[in-house]
Amino acid sequence: MSAEPARVEGAPPPIPWEDRPDGEAGPLWRSSRNPIIGRDHLPRSNSIFNSAVVPFRDGYAGVFRVDDTRRTMNVHAGRSPDGVTWEIDEVPISFAPADDRVRDVQQDFIHAYDPRVTWLEDRYYVTWCNGYHGPTIGVGYTHDFESFHQLDNAFLPFNRNGVLFPRRIGDRYAMLSRPSDNGHTPFGDVFYSESPDLTHWGRHRHVLATAPWTWESTKVGAGPTPIETEEGWLLVYHGVLTSCNGFVYSMGAALLDLDEPWRVIARGRDYLLSPQVPYEQVGDVPNVVFPCAALVERETDRLTIYYGGADTVVCLAHGRLSEILDFVRG
Amino acid sequence: MSAEPARVEGAPPPIPWEDRPDGEAGPLWRSSRNPIIGRDHLPRSNSIFNSAVVPFRDGYAGVFRVDDTRRTMNVHAGRSPDGVTWEIDEVPISFAPADDRVRDVQQDFIHAYDPRVTWLEDRYYVTWCNGYHGPTIGVGYTHDFESFHQLDNAFLPFNRNGVLFPRRIGDRYAMLSRPSDNGHTPFGDVFYSESPDLTHWGRHRHVLATAPWTWESTKVGAGPTPIETEEGWLLVYHGVLTSCNGFVYSMGAALLDLDEPWRVIARGRDYLLSPQVPYEQVGDVPNVVFPCAALVERETDRLTIYYGGADTVVCLAHGRLSEILDFVRG
Amino acid sequence: MSAEPARVEGAPPPIPWEDRPDGEAGPLWRSSRNPIIGRDHLPRSNSIFNSAVVPFRDGYAGVFRVDDTRRTMNVHAGRSPDGVTWEIDEVPISFAPADDRVRDVQQDFIHAYDPRVTWLEDRYYVTWCNGYHGPTIGVGYTHDFESFHQLDNAFLPFNRNGVLFPRRIGDRYAMLSRPSDNGHTPFGDVFYSESPDLTHWGRHRHVLATAPWTWESTKVGAGPTPIETEEGWLLVYHGVLTSCNGFVYSMGAALLDLDEPWRVIARGRDYLLSPQVPYEQVGDVPNVVFPCAALVERETDRLTIYYGGADTVVCLAHGRLSEILDFVRG
Amino acid sequence: MSAEPARVEGAPPPIPWEDRPDGEAGPLWRSSRNPIIGRDHLPRSNSIFNSAVVPFRDGYAGVFRVDDTRRTMNVHAGRSPDGVTWEIDEVPISFAPADDRVRDVQQDFIHAYDPRVTWLEDRYYVTWCNGYHGPTIGVGYTHDFESFHQLDNAFLPFNRNGVLFPRRIGDRYAMLSRPSDNGHTPFGDVFYSESPDLTHWGRHRHVLATAPWTWESTKVGAGPTPIETEEGWLLVYHGVLTSCNGFVYSMGAALLDLDEPWRVIARGRDYLLSPQVPYEQVGDVPNVVFPCAALVERETDRLTIYYGGADTVVCLAHGRLSEILDFVRG
Amino acid sequence: MSAEPARVEGAPPPIPWEDRPDGEAGPLWRSSRNPIIGRDHLPRSNSIFNSAVVPFRDGYAGVFRVDDTRRTMNVHAGRSPDGVTWEIDEVPISFAPADDRVRDVQQDFIHAYDPRVTWLEDRYYVTWCNGYHGPTIGVGYTHDFESFHQLDNAFLPFNRNGVLFPRRIGDRYAMLSRPSDNGHTPFGDVFYSESPDLTHWGRHRHVLATAPWTWESTKVGAGPTPIETEEGWLLVYHGVLTSCNGFVYSMGAALLDLDEPWRVIARGRDYLLSPQVPYEQVGDVPNVVFPCAALVERETDRLTIYYGGADTVVCLAHGRLSEILDFVRG
Amino acid sequence: MSAEPARVEGAPPPIPWEDRPDGEAGPLWRSSRNPIIGRDHLPRSNSIFNSAVVPFRDGYAGVFRVDDTRRTMNVHAGRSPDGVTWEIDEVPISFAPADDRVRDVQQDFIHAYDPRVTWLEDRYYVTWCNGYHGPTIGVGYTHDFESFHQLDNAFLPFNRNGVLFPRRIGDRYAMLSRPSDNGHTPFGDVFYSESPDLTHWGRHRHVLATAPWTWESTKVGAGPTPIETEEGWLLVYHGVLTSCNGFVYSMGAALLDLDEPWRVIARGRDYLLSPQVPYEQVGDVPNVVFPCAALVERETDRLTIYYGGADTVVCLAHGRLSEILDFVRG
Repeated sequence: MSAEPARVEGAPPPIPWEDRPDGEAGPLWRSSRNPIIGRDHLPRSNSIFNSAVVPFRDGYAGVFRVDDTRRTMNVHAGRSPDGVTWEIDEVPISFAPADDRVRDVQQDFIHAYDPRVTWLEDRYYVTWCNGYHGPTIGVGYTHDFESFHQLDNAFLPFNRNGVLFPRRIGDRYAMLSRPSDNGHTPFGDVFYSESPDLTHWGRHRHVLATAPWTWESTKVGAGPTPIETEEGWLLVYHGVLTSCNGFVYSMGAALLDLDEPWRVIARGRDYLLSPQVPYEQVGDVPNVVFPCAALVERETDRLTIYYGGADTVVCLAHGRLSEILDFVRG
Repeated sequence: MSAEPARVEGAPPPIPWEDRPDGEAGPLWRSSRNPIIGRDHLPRSNSIFNSAVVPFRDGYAGVFRVDDTRRTMNVHAGRSPDGVTWEIDEVPISFAPADDRVRDVQQDFIHAYDPRVTWLEDRYYVTWCNGYHGPTIGVGYTHDFESFHQLDNAFLPFNRNGVLFPRRIGDRYAMLSRPSDNGHTPFGDVFYSESPDLTHWGRHRHVLATAPWTWESTKVGAGPTPIETEEGWLLVYHGVLTSCNGFVYSMGAALLDLDEPWRVIARGRDYLLSPQVPYEQVGDVPNVVFPCAALVERETDRLTIYYGGADTVVCLAHGRLSEILDFVRG
Repeated sequence: MSAEPARVEGAPPPIPWEDRPDGEAGPLWRSSRNPIIGRDHLPRSNSIFNSAVVPFRDGYAGVFRVDDTRRTMNVHAGRSPDGVTWEIDEVPISFAPADDRVRDVQQDFIHAYDPRVTWLEDRYYVTWCNGYHGPTIGVGYTHDFESFHQLDNAFLPFNRNGVLFPRRIGDRYAMLSRPSDNGHTPFGDVFYSESPDLTHWGRHRHVLATAPWTWESTKVGAGPTPIETEEGWLLVYHGVLTSCNGFVYSMGAALLDLDEPWRVIARGRDYLLSPQVPYEQVGDVPNVVFPCAALVERETDRLTIYYGGADTVVCLAHGRLSEILDFVRG
Repeated sequence: MSAEPARVEGAPPPIPWEDRPDGEAGPLWRSSRNPIIGRDHLPRSNSIFNSAVVPFRDGYAGVFRVDDTRRTMNVHAGRSPDGVTWEIDEVPISFAPADDRVRDVQQDFIHAYDPRVTWLEDRYYVTWCNGYHGPTIGVGYTHDFESFHQLDNAFLPFNRNGVLFPRRIGDRYAMLSRPSDNGHTPFGDVFYSESPDLTHWGRHRHVLATAPWTWESTKVGAGPTPIETEEGWLLVYHGVLTSCNGFVYSMGAALLDLDEPWRVIARGRDYLLSPQVPYEQVGDVPNVVFPCAALVERETDRLTIYYGGADTVVCLAHGRLSEILDFVRG
Repeated sequence: MSAEPARVEGAPPPIPWEDRPDGEAGPLWRSSRNPIIGRDHLPRSNSIFNSAVVPFRDGYAGVFRVDDTRRTMNVHAGRSPDGVTWEIDEVPISFAPADDRVRDVQQDFIHAYDPRVTWLEDRYYVTWCNGYHGPTIGVGYTHDFESFHQLDNAFLPFNRNGVLFPRRIGDRYAMLSRPSDNGHTPFGDVFYSESPDLTHWGRHRHVLATAPWTWESTKVGAGPTPIETEEGWLLVYHGVLTSCNGFVYSMGAALLDLDEPWRVIARGRDYLLSPQVPYEQVGDVPNVVFPCAALVERETDRLTIYYGGADTVVCLAHGRLSEILDFVRG
Repeated sequence: MSAEPARVEGAPPPIPWEDRPDGEAGPLWRSSRNPIIGRDHLPRSNSIFNSAVVPFRDGYAGVFRVDDTRRTMNVHAGRSPDGVTWEIDEVPISFAPADDRVRDVQQDFIHAYDPRVTWLEDRYYVTWCNGYHGPTIGVGYTHDFESFHQLDNAFLPFNRNGVLFPRRIGDRYAMLSRPSDNGHTPFGDVFYSESPDLTHWGRHRHVLATAPWTWESTKVGAGPTPIETEEGWLLVYHGVLTSCNGFVYSMGAALLDLDEPWRVIARGRDYLLSPQVPYEQVGDVPNVVFPCAALVERETDRLTIYYGGADTVVCLAHGRLSEILDFVRG
């Protein structure tokens, strides 16, 4: 049932973890070490946030959103022995084109942000928000987090928050994404798409709409790679509410059908986490909690989520997988 | 002259109070106990703010805006021995229709927020922003803060910040409100309306306009129940300025004619309080000070204002009634 | 059942009429005499449109929207022997306050437009869009179309298209209106309100919403005084669609419950008339058909509608009452 | 070289044609019979426009955008002996799902508009703007213009103006489209996408951008099926300029590389036709010329374009293919 | 008193003229020859409008706004024996820099529109809306309408409708203009500025504001060169109203103090002319009347105004100078 | 080469300074004494920020933006012995008109903000954002920071951030400014203008554009008086990025040609300082760093910048002139 066994060389260490603090009632709690990566972790970093982490060899690796001090948005590779202490490359990832025709879309390369990483079949796939006449979904892969290869963009603009499923559904690759417009868009639902080859995509299905008068009334977007469980795919995602003074980004969860993931089996009524501490409330973008990755340790029922705080720093939240499933089922 | 004696059963305790701190020059100062109610005061509360408090029996009672962790907005009843320590019901107020026809508007009940409470004749009236095909003014009452009854909505949408006067003016009930639109509206003045029966309203009069180039240049709305004084009705209200980065909500005051309250006798030039401390500057809506209730102790010249901080918490401010009147008269 | 007999002094002449032209399939057809009132009918008129007509003595009388060559919007009285040839006063109507307190709202009088006229009990009531710190519903009356009296505004701003019912419903006066905002608003539904005295209004009920993806997807507003039939109140109204190049105003119809008119019994799926001829497509506001009055001749089953064309001229359309009821019931 | 021979059963008649009128200098001229299809061609049609025509058996067939008198947008089949006189079905096209999974997207079917038709390999493919949680590109086919089959939508929302190429490019099917947002969008470029199976799409390439300070400064979208010539694909398209009073839709042309159609070989500097006669300037959407189909008669060098006028009627324009190629090459 | 004598070589012919038609009551009437210049007057013209005409030698000369069929906006010179029949150069005006430093702003030359021409001291000055990092006021001159010389732009962006006075005021050159923003701006007042050298400008004074609820409620801009009279400078200008469906541009007039032209002596209450005939109501921009030049024949009391219709054609209107002054003084 | 010697009476003390803290890598570092002036420095101040300081006699003087508790914006004079401890006048600066005609623009005086001060020839010039029918550039001067004189406004509205050069360029006075619109404008570039007399301005040249996808993608505006160096004018300026939740104001630098300052020799790629500490991130306008003045000590290579934090307080940053020049040259 676990999607990860193929990549084990040396087993990764236990996932980062802290037990639930006293007095914490919710299904998810913040790490006392937050933010685990500060905004000036690199010499020229303005901020590091909205980043993706996976088990890798005998530790962890990741792809990090780094806005530099020019405020150029890019993605960088990083490695960690424990998932908490990170060495991040100062130089952005350079994607080699997977074939000649990919060069076309690289000529227009402008920026890259909000990456996700998914172990799929035999390698680590990276998806990110890629500039090509507007934001769309970039797709690449790596075997070693050193050399990276780029496929064609998955969709036409305007799209963000593309997240691959960790295995084929039927015989097709599958991705969630959020089509929208080319600005700081006030709308956006989650869709599901399939592909025979990771290059051509179709069979687009609507998955998650916004919910009026709730924490997710303005837009919703997939977060970490969906987590396979016996009951369905657990999708942790962000939802946005428009207050008098801009957006509030919170984190929630839903359960999608295993075989037809565009069918929503259950959806958490409440947010799992909303911006309530200073490193989430104050920063380059106030009031943002934005999940991009999750680590699961099924034998201990532990789930650790990596999320961006205030579009400025990287944070961790912990919870029990079983409790979060209970939360989603209401 | 006082509007409150009829409701005394056991006299309420002294109103919450702290003397003016050293070095504080303004007519209003913050409680050192702020916020007196935190955002997670209830198990499922996301935030508690913009709430109304009145003397009740031998203590205090109130109606509280509670946004839950789904970000559903609702109003809850609460009780306190001293006005500072509060027990708030976990379950929202359920309004029984005052007559059969009120059921019509309850079928469309969606949300409730920003309540005010007014002792009027023989009971406590509650007004709030009520969802009925857009925001409008809900009207209800209670004798005991346990069972609540709902009248028809006072106005057509789109309206917010409906505040009853604590006695009839002439032989009519009277209410202030702020008609506007159905979004996070960038305009809004205060109007006065009359009613023979609290159900049918007319004689609408313009009261307070915004003032260009000041702290109240974008919109204004009534706060606590107007306070009757020999010189006129003291109206504490909120005013909004549009900065480069959204709205700033401050608190100010004006004096309205006793018999024709749509006539403004005097109006404070400056704000009484603006967002300047963290619990007002940082939260779900940054930079908000929003007054909804006031307690007056005429024999000691004390005035205590309940206000919401950053749309997240409940706070107190204290002042001398006579000094605030001086402030308003300039 | 007919609401009009009481006002007969000399019976009015037959209503303006033309038989259905050959080849005309719809339930409503344009008069060959359109526009019956041109834009320069008065020496200083820029346009005359969106006007209301009723049987009066041995002919017809009306209240006309006249925008003068300053583009000031005002209402003028007019008289006609046949409903087609009109003598309109050059001077706008001057409303005498019905009581002293009405003077308050007249001090702020700015503009008046889109009148409706309704015979109710013993006089002709006029409602119109009245400027008082934003658009709201002005209410007045006349016995003779020479002297006019003004009541208080019915509602708080922001409201337009207030239309009285021609008799009490239960023991209450009743009005339809369309609350909205203070600009050229892109939204607006029809609501119902009641009053014991034509001054204080309450019991607000939602009546008609917009219908997505149709001719009435942006906003809807009541047109002529509702027409009482055995099956319900026939409401002719305007609906607005937003095209790539602005609004298109069309005319449609619905049937409201006789006793609880906020309940919609039936609603025509299609428009009755949309802008398709030059005097509706070209003018000060392109693509506008805006009905404000209707004359019914029950014994001949004839219905004649007065509507504005392109916010510039007054036009007529004719139909059979029974056929329009069929149209509404689908 | 010609893409059409396979479908000849009985050769179609000559394409509709009129010689260039005296005094007409441009490469394209209007038919004297315009509009060839009026707005009320069908009993319940509000307007018929933006429609697609192809040779079919011994005459012509087409798919027509018909907005009915509810202003519901739909597509209808039609047949003509000469391309000018049309019999259009009163009932909209009903698309049978090409496979079971297509039913998913049909459950959300809301509206259909702006069709194109392309003969491709062995059948007529129809593409249109299809409602599925926003506008996207519907794809279907027919052999006989009587029964129609629907494939999955080609892309995620938000997209319009999907136009198939009439043969494979390399071994892939190819389509142009214009991703944008979900309103009356003020931006939009033309993109190229490929597919192995007409269901899964990828290899998205940018083709045509808007050109500042010209007739096509706001958005551009493909028109008829691209016309293969020895020099490249001739693309007739629409371009939009934003004036003080809304959009102006004109028609222009470009030449795309035969093998890599995302490479623009040449692009006409001027519009080919802009709204200059009443049936293009006045209607449901003023100032619109919108091409959707073209007929080519290579042996006579004749090109006839079907275009919508003012979103209300169907019109024809004629020109010489060689002259239009000269025009595009500047 | 007349500003024109110096330029007489052969006296110009009488100005274009038609007497007031019967039934025409207003102070200004349209020429029966309108439009005197059609949109396709030149081989590549899309439209010719908003143009300026002056007496020149024994006839007339002018600078014309010509949008070509690419919709590029440019200015062209033209000559006429009678002011009605025009020969317009096919090639746009090429401005030689008046000094080396003017080349800087010509490097960024993008577009030119809405010219005015003024005889001032010893030559004809041309002002126009000139693209330089946004719209601003270009200034040039000619002696012969064949070679043109360009000075520096008068102001920083964003500005339009720059109009020179025909003589110095005091010892300074003087210009009216309308600062605003870089789009189809919804606001704009007329200002007055002075210069010692036509290159450096200062002493900016506010002249004309918009007037709420009138034909000129959105923006106002100077039209022809101000006409000197004994009572003051007669300024014909355009005013804009925002209707439900965009802007309506009308023409009005005001009288400015001779010595301090920023002081408004009188201002016409009504528009002089608003879009009411097809060539003003229908075209590339519906509902536009836009005056740019005037010819005065003092001995006959005749005034002829050149104005653009619907941003498409050139039109004439005639009136008596004395009557228009009466109109302005109300 | 130094522009300051003429004003020395008693040499000013060393400029405020702190050495680079350990661990600080960038070319600019914050003072440990920040904010050096708090929001309530004056009895009625709401905030003090965006202010200008110069050496004066044996200490320092400045002009300060003070928003009072009415949120009226005004400028006040202040004096300091050391540049850190300030005595600010409670009463705003009263500008005497430099000549009679300046009174015209003072009649409309509404507000004043964001001052700059420049020693030029023989006096201290003050420029600021001045209300005159919209924001524009006020110009005044003082010899003693006690009496101030006002010249005419430099430009037409709408303009902000006017900054004088400290000497003539060629024989002309020179100023940078940022024309834009009348709101919280989302666009704005820096322009250069010249004047023979500080009253009439011309020769407007574009200097700095925004840079897409960087910290300065929305608007840019000059900060302190440009600093003359052998390599060019060092311009410290602010740049604005639009995030999901409003603007972020950062500080950067560029080098302008000494003789033709509209030519940009070099421009720093990154920001020098962005809002990253609480007094810059939280306040009346979150996320603002806004430089208005700089002190240079050439013999020690020291540069100290005065900047506003969060539109609320005054702060200092320090750096080495030579390092900042290196930073700009990249």
